[in-house]
Amino acid sequence: MLATVISAARDIRVEEVADPAVLAPTDAVVRVVAACVCGSDLWPYRGVTPTTKPRRIGHEFVGIVEEVGSDVSKVSVGDFVIAPFYWCDMTCANCVNGVSTSCLNGGWWGAPDRHGDFVDGGQGERVRVPLADGTLYPTPGTPDPSLIPSLLTLSDVMGTGHHAAVSAGVGPGSTVAVVGDGAVGLCAVLAAKRLGASRIVAMSRHADRQAIARQFGATDIVEERGAEGIARIKELFDGIGPDCVLECVGTAESMDQALRSARPGGMVGYVGVPNGGAELPIQTMFGTNVGANGGVAPVRNYVAELLPEVLDGSLNPGLVFDLELPLSEAAEAYAAMDERRATKVLLRP
Amino acid sequence: MLATVISAARDIRVEEVADPAVLAPTDAVVRVVAACVCGSDLWPYRGVTPTTKPRRIGHEFVGIVEEVGSDVSKVSVGDFVIAPFYWCDMTCANCVNGVSTSCLNGGWWGAPDRHGDFVDGGQGERVRVPLADGTLYPTPGTPDPSLIPSLLTLSDVMGTGHHAAVSAGVGPGSTVAVVGDGAVGLCAVLAAKRLGASRIVAMSRHADRQAIARQFGATDIVEERGAEGIARIKELFDGIGPDCVLECVGTAESMDQALRSARPGGMVGYVGVPNGGAELPIQTMFGTNVGANGGVAPVRNYVAELLPEVLDGSLNPGLVFDLELPLSEAAEAYAAMDERRATKVLLRP
Repeated sequence: MLATVISAARDIRVEEVADPAVLAPTDAVVRVVAACVCGSDLWPYRGVTPTTKPRRIGHEFVGIVEEVGSDVSKVSVGDFVIAPFYWCDMTCANCVNGVSTSCLNGGWWGAPDRHGDFVDGGQGERVRVPLADGTLYPTPGTPDPSLIPSLLTLSDVMGTGHHAAVSAGVGPGSTVAVVGDGAVGLCAVLAAKRLGASRIVAMSRHADRQAIARQFGATDIVEERGAEGIARIKELFDGIGPDCVLECVGTAESMDQALRSARPGGMVGYVGVPNGGAELPIQTMFGTNVGANGGVAPVRNYVAELLPEVLDGSLNPGLVFDLELPLSEAAEAYAAMDERRATKVLLRP
Repeated sequence: MLATVISAARDIRVEEVADPAVLAPTDAVVRVVAACVCGSDLWPYRGVTPTTKPRRIGHEFVGIVEEVGSDVSKVSVGDFVIAPFYWCDMTCANCVNGVSTSCLNGGWWGAPDRHGDFVDGGQGERVRVPLADGTLYPTPGTPDPSLIPSLLTLSDVMGTGHHAAVSAGVGPGSTVAVVGDGAVGLCAVLAAKRLGASRIVAMSRHADRQAIARQFGATDIVEERGAEGIARIKELFDGIGPDCVLECVGTAESMDQALRSARPGGMVGYVGVPNGGAELPIQTMFGTNVGANGGVAPVRNYVAELLPEVLDGSLNPGLVFDLELPLSEAAEAYAAMDERRATKVLLRP
């Protein structure tokens, strides 16, 4: 089958690789219907995280189950399924607590499982899915093709934006600022709106992304950054700042922006993968009682809540995809996102 | 009048100083009935924070109002009052949000107010209280003398322990570990119990403090620290750790202990004044979804909730005081706490 392989910074190729197979009785094999490129995939692409040898890449996909192991009972051949960006059993103490990213038996795509067997990345024609009963979420029936982009966001970006909002405690009447206008930041705007925020400021300098943010529920746009951005945000909220700030970038600068923008006693919900050695400035946080909550989003736990609204058309996070390419053009997908010609690219095998 | 002055590390003296007076129409003068030494007072005492010139010290007191300015309407001469460890108006946006430590017009004892006039520390015979209508909380009638230690804890340690528990989201059925067995840590145990925690582990190596912790509601004691302590705590909670960890020390080690003890998705409520340059390890927090929330406790906002239970005798945080001395022996009070001969010392002018 064909799958995307990264060999070095800016060296992305779609190559012939071995077909996946059911190796454990809890495995399934899924034929990928749609996959995409994640902001975090740009890190090895840009060389921020080194690539020492060729490896498979990708971790967001939806597809059709083609084969299941003998112990798989919750998904069947032919099911349309959503896969989160990791695999998990959904039965261990952490999964039951809502934190399936800390599954005691789980792991990550494009890496060996706990038996040492390689698990495919998601940017390919097929994927071996460990712990299929926990990992995969089957939709009721086969969804309308027009819903596929939005369903695909439940694999990562919509669930991640939702996690930022939930972690910050967004609820009815909350005031919110969102740092980051990538796909996750835009989904965080949508999540905040969905959870009842009364005012949502999107920090963005790009007209196209500002337009999506407004469509998703942003009431205000702030283009300034740094100290100027903080001052502008505070000004919009009685001079003290909003209740909740959703940090959706992952740099030291963006986290600093978030922590200094929240009102005293406010909460930063952060989901940007921490990039570099930035740590949280506890003196600042202590003095202002601004908390930080979040992390790698347990999106599998959120599918049950978000899916019905995607299926009935009331939640349309798929608008974050502004480019669609065949899998064979994965290299162009990376380049388009790297050069900010696209916010998020959907790939079809 | 007499007041405590620190001139250098380990140089604490009770000296004659100028009597306080009403300087602004919003001021009151309070005669101190009981004051105490805070764990944070030990930092200048130990030289951890430098003392460059003699200065007044102390920030926890209860007393009787002796004089009020012309704009004071909520407290009257003769009222018994509780003062938080800072002053605040209770009317600004931050105070109304429950974060009176970030009062837009407030400040700290033993420092100049915004007019540049010096405000007394609390370890003296009298205190000039700015913004008296906001800062002071009068009790209904004059309380029984036996209640004074517990009332005094509402000035800082009980409110601070409560803030740790509230910040960590402790509620009915929560599982909790408390890092730190000083007065604040012990009060955090009591606060967690009061808020309905089902299991509370106190980390303590001192038999006397363990006994108070048990009296306050601790169900288990862990004496180990570091990696061993973390392993022991996780073991007590299904191998994954408790929902909430209350950090009541403020060192890099104690915060690390707290962040690594909480279960994935758990929350650290921290109130230990950050000591030194420790920052929060975001990579660890991101991976486990353990949040950090808390800071300098807005104890003034908590008096209304906690006071009735102190007055009816159902809440007895005053047990943390294990030594009582006359104000004239303030130097011995510091020495006793520094040498861990006492957990917390009450001073009577």
